[in-house]
Amino acid sequence: MAVEHLSTVPHLTTALSGPLLALESVLLDKQGPIEAWLRRQWLSTPAPFYGSVDLRNAGFKLAPVDTNLFPAGFNNLNNDFMPLCVQAAQSAVERVCPKATGIALIPENHTRNVSYIESLATLAEILNHAGFDVRIGSLNPDITVPTEITSDRGRSITLHPITREADKISIGGLTPCLILLNNDLSAGRPPILEGLKQTLAPPLSLGWSDRLKSQHFAMYRKIAGEFATQIDIDPWLIDPLFRECGEINFMKREGEDCLARNVEALIDNIQKKYNEYGIDQPPFVIVKADAGTYGMGVMTVRSADEVLSLNRKQRTKMSYAKEGGAVTRTIMQEGVYTFETWGGNSSIAEPVIYMIDNSVVGGFYRVHTDRRTDENLNAPGMHFEPLAFAKSCIQPDKTRAPDAEPNRFYAYGVIARLALLAAAREIAFEEKP
Amino acid sequence: MAVEHLSTVPHLTTALSGPLLALESVLLDKQGPIEAWLRRQWLSTPAPFYGSVDLRNAGFKLAPVDTNLFPAGFNNLNNDFMPLCVQAAQSAVERVCPKATGIALIPENHTRNVSYIESLATLAEILNHAGFDVRIGSLNPDITVPTEITSDRGRSITLHPITREADKISIGGLTPCLILLNNDLSAGRPPILEGLKQTLAPPLSLGWSDRLKSQHFAMYRKIAGEFATQIDIDPWLIDPLFRECGEINFMKREGEDCLARNVEALIDNIQKKYNEYGIDQPPFVIVKADAGTYGMGVMTVRSADEVLSLNRKQRTKMSYAKEGGAVTRTIMQEGVYTFETWGGNSSIAEPVIYMIDNSVVGGFYRVHTDRRTDENLNAPGMHFEPLAFAKSCIQPDKTRAPDAEPNRFYAYGVIARLALLAAAREIAFEEKP
Repeated sequence: MAVEHLSTVPHLTTALSGPLLALESVLLDKQGPIEAWLRRQWLSTPAPFYGSVDLRNAGFKLAPVDTNLFPAGFNNLNNDFMPLCVQAAQSAVERVCPKATGIALIPENHTRNVSYIESLATLAEILNHAGFDVRIGSLNPDITVPTEITSDRGRSITLHPITREADKISIGGLTPCLILLNNDLSAGRPPILEGLKQTLAPPLSLGWSDRLKSQHFAMYRKIAGEFATQIDIDPWLIDPLFRECGEINFMKREGEDCLARNVEALIDNIQKKYNEYGIDQPPFVIVKADAGTYGMGVMTVRSADEVLSLNRKQRTKMSYAKEGGAVTRTIMQEGVYTFETWGGNSSIAEPVIYMIDNSVVGGFYRVHTDRRTDENLNAPGMHFEPLAFAKSCIQPDKTRAPDAEPNRFYAYGVIARLALLAAAREIAFEEKP
Repeated sequence: MAVEHLSTVPHLTTALSGPLLALESVLLDKQGPIEAWLRRQWLSTPAPFYGSVDLRNAGFKLAPVDTNLFPAGFNNLNNDFMPLCVQAAQSAVERVCPKATGIALIPENHTRNVSYIESLATLAEILNHAGFDVRIGSLNPDITVPTEITSDRGRSITLHPITREADKISIGGLTPCLILLNNDLSAGRPPILEGLKQTLAPPLSLGWSDRLKSQHFAMYRKIAGEFATQIDIDPWLIDPLFRECGEINFMKREGEDCLARNVEALIDNIQKKYNEYGIDQPPFVIVKADAGTYGMGVMTVRSADEVLSLNRKQRTKMSYAKEGGAVTRTIMQEGVYTFETWGGNSSIAEPVIYMIDNSVVGGFYRVHTDRRTDENLNAPGMHFEPLAFAKSCIQPDKTRAPDAEPNRFYAYGVIARLALLAAAREIAFEEKP
């Protein structure tokens, strides 16, 4: 087994990487058929405007654990690949609104988050370089006049109030053909954006007010199955098992039995796969809000007992997701170890892949110095350090080992696009009359 | 005037750069409307699969002087922008043959040209990374079995014989949907490629056996006029004047009078524009084969007398273009000075811009150490040194001077796309029933 230790890429430390090396080899060998298969998929279900996918690389398994259709973090991408983003943005707009000259960008409201401002400024810059007149229109009712916000790294954006006349919105005098959502609608569907004649991408129905992770992963499961058949692998190698419960109220301890029962069944199923592949690690399960993001309302459990013996603090934590919405539906997902480490093995890392249209445009490693290999890394904390990919994800090098940097990144790009395809099918499903 | 002297970019040395700085400023200021205008153009006339455009930058004028629809020189592009090429190639194939899984590449026959082999290997690699099964099929009758050719820099390609059954060709067992021509057909339209059911890009009619530079520049003149109106500039700043004659036989001295008369008229017209802009340089004219490439059959003249007093050697040189075809039709084009110099002003440089689909994917400077500012630089010679652009052409930086590297490259990308658009209209014109 050839393991590289390049300074730009986390080290994949696992004695269990055999099956993953096998998976990466298959992805490399079958690059042609894989790309052809993906192209056929995009022809029948066009990709969302953009998306980011969190992956976990366990060495023996490489799988998406979260798919974000309103991605932030553009500021964390390698600046060298901005031209790639610009070109992909041109294709994306050409697909949804070929005659567009202007784009309205609707961001999140948390304008005090410096990283988010940086991301938004980067996204606006990408669209600007793609040749569009970009105006940022805020849903925040406090924004009543154009308001400039400058990040402490000196990047600035101007938030405009949104005005609506009949079935069109305008932002700072611009009435664009295309409205690009960068707000995941955790707070609900904004009435001002309902029933517009303008193109809204991604559609409102894909916001977290309507969308469920379990729907996404059900779509993904189907795609992983189809894809696995195409390239003749066990779909489990790229697909995390999951189960869902109905309504759960952690504070009132309602639905806990269902949760415990399903956690137990899931642990059993994971253990069976671990036995099949000779994996000598305890299975674990991630319990998270079915509609939610930002890594809130997420916990790691290793047994049904753990679910039944949550203390008050833990239950409170699980009850509140972003924007204060109480967790009601819950998804239990197979935990996928991350065995990528950075900086003398003290920090663990997970890849996040960015796509615009159907192109992989870059990615970075989310690095945490004080989390374990079985924990969610998408957590607020001073130790979060993104690490931009130094190579693009579309140039595998068949002359090198399957886990060499460009090849590992290619594998990431393939699995991330499968998750994006699942989102594309969600959109197609929602848009059916 | 802010002139940069970066080590990666030729120095623009001219006291006359005022109008060009003005032009570059306009292109920068109007980036949004320019990109929107170009997008509208591509919607009505899709871009050719690929192309390269030779530009001349006189400081006071920036214009295309040659548009190649079967570009070589991919090996001279900056390797950092390969992902950009890959992404653009995916768009290009999606446009012409969305279900393609394989591509047949038909190269030139001069397989002893090391640079061409390197270019071909790079092009095949781009298509390969874009996820296509690529086979190179040679028109050379000597290739009767698969033949591997290795360049002295260690890159290798395999040439396959082409077989035809009914209205489809196959190459090494592959019967692809798309046949990509990288052969400019100077030797004529190959019968084996006539009347195919497969998609041929660019179409046979765009080869030099049918195409005339004068047609291209007539299309370009129209586009330059439309574009100039859009952004309110004098079209002459981006468009070289030209005239054409009917049949010319340099050896028999037939048609020389027509040539002399037209050279004189052209010199007069250029002088008038030079007077208008206060340009204190003698006008000159490039006389070249109307159907031809490779910088053969090209000469610089400064007066009608020069045309009438050509010696035998000069006339012989003008009589033979690539593949030994005698020059018959001739185009006289306004000479555009190149005032970009490299390495202590001893070498002069001209930019060559590469496009795949409608995206600018890179470029390089063609540098010559022993040519003057009014000579054709596309000449065989040991001093030809390509210099890859270190920046992409799609990321202008409005905070910097109009002639700063990214901004100069953006201007190049705009003018090159206008030339590509002229070629797109040639294709649309040819394909009209």
